Amino acid sequence: MEKLYLDDLKPGDVFESGEYALNAEDIKAFARQFDPQDFHLDEVAAEAGFFHGLIASGWHTAAITMRLVVESVPLASGIIGATVDLSWKRPVRPGERLRVRTVIDEIRVSRSKPDRGFAHTISETRNQNNELCQVLRSKLVVFKRP
Amino acid sequence: MEKLYLDDLKPGDVFESGEYALNAEDIKAFARQFDPQDFHLDEVAAEAGFFHGLIASGWHTAAITMRLVVESVPLASGIIGATVDLSWKRPVRPGERLRVRTVIDEIRVSRSKPDRGFAHTISETRNQNNELCQVLRSKLVVFKRP
Repeated sequence: MEKLYLDDLKPGDVFESGEYALNAEDIKAFARQFDPQDFHLDEVAAEAGFFHGLIASGWHTAAITMRLVVESVPLASGIIGATVDLSWKRPVRPGERLRVRTVIDEIRVSRSKPDRGFAHTISETRNQNNELCQVLRSKLVVFKRP
Repeated sequence: MEKLYLDDLKPGDVFESGEYALNAEDIKAFARQFDPQDFHLDEVAAEAGFFHGLIASGWHTAAITMRLVVESVPLASGIIGATVDLSWKRPVRPGERLRVRTVIDEIRVSRSKPDRGFAHTISETRNQNNELCQVLRSKLVVFKRP
């Protein structure tokens, strides 16, 4: 993929990722390390709880989203986030396949550092049924072409 | 720890976590799976790049923060996030030890579902030198005492 600089981006540009499948063991392995709660670790307890079945940690969905963004948005200096907002719309369950569509919302040149600027992006994470699972709004640091 | 319901929380309540240490191998292992970029994977390339050395993925810092919040904020129904804002203030580097201080910012009872409400929390993640690495603002779903 051609590497992109701030000069190459404009509002409305769209980047589509590939797919990332996750199963119950992936969900539990992430949760054991970072989010050890029943509804991410134990099918039986999860079935009786708030979500009526095992679900992925929202932070696991976020991390998978980052993986898919890194693979699909070819910024020359990499994906460097300053701030992000995350909204979890729907739990991700074992066997789902996620993909991410990233849209450039706004481009701003830095006032203090003329070699760079910010790309405001919206990344929607959907499952194999096109159901919206997560919306990530990011402010990324992006460099101008040298 | 005594489990807490919405009724037990009030603005200004503070929860302090334990510590979580991470090394270069932890940083690379997370990055290989979720954020495969040079500055998280390769010391030599990282040294020459934007961050002047290997740094943890911001999503790794966020996931560690969740682990520390799960361990330190004993909500009866668990830590269930609806939306969050994340701001990365300072990169986390190999050998650092992170801890999280969570403050209750606001409590709201749900209008549509009287058995629950929302706790707005601010979780600051600091390293062993008390330097601020990340600020996480969360809107958590919290149940009332049955």
